[in-house]
Amino acid sequence: MKILITGFSGFVSRHFLRYLYDNGIDAQILGIDVIFPQFNYRELGDRIGIEFFQIDLLDRSELEKIVRKFSPEYILHLASYSSVAYSWKHPEESFINNTNIFLNLISVVKAMNVDARILSVGSSEEYGNVSESDLPLTEKQILHPNSPYAVARVSQEQLSKVFADSFHMNIVLTRSFNHIGPYQDERFAVPSFIKRILDISRTSREGVIETGDISLVRDFVDVRDVVRAYYLLLTRGTPGQVYNICSGKGIPLQAIINMVAELQGVIIRTRVNPKYVRPMDNKVVIGSALKLERELGWKPMIPIEKTLKDMCMIMAEVNSESGKNTMRRNT
Amino acid sequence: MKILITGFSGFVSRHFLRYLYDNGIDAQILGIDVIFPQFNYRELGDRIGIEFFQIDLLDRSELEKIVRKFSPEYILHLASYSSVAYSWKHPEESFINNTNIFLNLISVVKAMNVDARILSVGSSEEYGNVSESDLPLTEKQILHPNSPYAVARVSQEQLSKVFADSFHMNIVLTRSFNHIGPYQDERFAVPSFIKRILDISRTSREGVIETGDISLVRDFVDVRDVVRAYYLLLTRGTPGQVYNICSGKGIPLQAIINMVAELQGVIIRTRVNPKYVRPMDNKVVIGSALKLERELGWKPMIPIEKTLKDMCMIMAEVNSESGKNTMRRNT
Repeated sequence: MKILITGFSGFVSRHFLRYLYDNGIDAQILGIDVIFPQFNYRELGDRIGIEFFQIDLLDRSELEKIVRKFSPEYILHLASYSSVAYSWKHPEESFINNTNIFLNLISVVKAMNVDARILSVGSSEEYGNVSESDLPLTEKQILHPNSPYAVARVSQEQLSKVFADSFHMNIVLTRSFNHIGPYQDERFAVPSFIKRILDISRTSREGVIETGDISLVRDFVDVRDVVRAYYLLLTRGTPGQVYNICSGKGIPLQAIINMVAELQGVIIRTRVNPKYVRPMDNKVVIGSALKLERELGWKPMIPIEKTLKDMCMIMAEVNSESGKNTMRRNT
Repeated sequence: MKILITGFSGFVSRHFLRYLYDNGIDAQILGIDVIFPQFNYRELGDRIGIEFFQIDLLDRSELEKIVRKFSPEYILHLASYSSVAYSWKHPEESFINNTNIFLNLISVVKAMNVDARILSVGSSEEYGNVSESDLPLTEKQILHPNSPYAVARVSQEQLSKVFADSFHMNIVLTRSFNHIGPYQDERFAVPSFIKRILDISRTSREGVIETGDISLVRDFVDVRDVVRAYYLLLTRGTPGQVYNICSGKGIPLQAIINMVAELQGVIIRTRVNPKYVRPMDNKVVIGSALKLERELGWKPMIPIEKTLKDMCMIMAEVNSESGKNTMRRNT
């Protein structure tokens, strides 16, 4: 199977490749990203063919060349400006880039008549303002996006539906909840907590970290469970349909900090820094993945404790500058 | 009052200026548009001050200069690629331009800390797929946009809410239904019917016109009623709130053709040309304007018969090349 992966250099793509590799899936991958990957994807070359091109999805003519040359059967569209915080600082850039890269991708596929199945990755942020009586959120919930990032994600989903309904394009959609796991960028909340707790644990038995509002409850799902869902949906999801990908459980950010502190054997106190508190955040977000379970038998399998333990292990290694790039490690 | 009007050269702006003029409203207008107006706005100069600048809203630095110089108290944002048909032919361009011009506008207003009330004009197209049991559509209806144009309009509305909620921007929103009236561009359905019927009536007592699906029922509202609503909302609407602007009545396109034919004293037969039939069109769209009536006492006042008669009169004149540009005529 020939799969085009956009946002190839991100941590989700890295785990997706690993999933194909570990499951002996016969795949030819063409990866594209605006930045170069920080992992050594060539190590997987004994079982899957992987090529990478550094291109900007905003450059339509480059994208056309790639699509013409590779003729993908599947497209995993991971590319995005995925930070909500960034979208508050740079709303125009974040919104415009996220919608433009997606429109470029689907319009090239349409214009070139490529018969590819596309997985359009969306976000639980699309739900926006919800009340606790709506929980757990199902795909039928009305969307009230409350950040520029979330509005762009809703647009992506609505454009997908328009293109699926009107041009018979084969697009499957997700609303992926907070995925966490090894190699996640430290700008995101959980890896940033872990990094700071690891830093403290190197020199002390206790310490203080500054946080946003850690009473917030979120639905965390291991990225390795997420990529398994992406593979299932890419190959067997129903076009035009949206699927939640989530654990179905709510965990307060405070509990994550406590678990990591315990793993590292340190006592961590927290202090709220208002600059990390986002406007308009929901107190509690929990999703229902029953649709994905019912249709494709997917369930999350990795408990949060293992996720955090693996993240701690990898981050400790990365910070000691060894083994940062290898794909061969078992996590 | 100082009002910045985007999309100044369009027919809605023309009627809005006329409304200010006829009601003796003391206004200073700065109009911007990417194209030059085809009407002689200087004729209104004895009562309202009007300046026009030909700039592209996609050019952020030009927009900044204008906003800094003029310091608007009110912004009437009419600019858009307003054709749904165009959005099917050029989905990327239509979507990207409509969202980008709006984002540029609100981010310039935000960045420059301009204390202006903005009226963000949206469309009944945002409702998208509806079932007849949902009629008449109220502002609480769930949105299922079904064209690239409609998705862009929903994004504009959602971005407005994000900016209103999070940055305390003063944005009032509309969902304007099919507005028709004198000087409307002939690419739109009703003026295109009138033009062809007028052409036939010049040489014959009967004729055939090609149409799309004229069994469609739409809620038509006279543009002069619309601009009265815009003035009320711009000055007194509740920020963050969305208001339908509509007649509350459904009229089949076939009935419009019949009324125009009768006005011209000709017999018109119609023939469906599939190329004019849009994908995914709703059979019936009727809105409820009760919210606008309840909050601001607005009701449509001009019956469709008068609208069509005025359109016929103006189009007959325009086609005879006299009086095309004057603003002084009473319509």
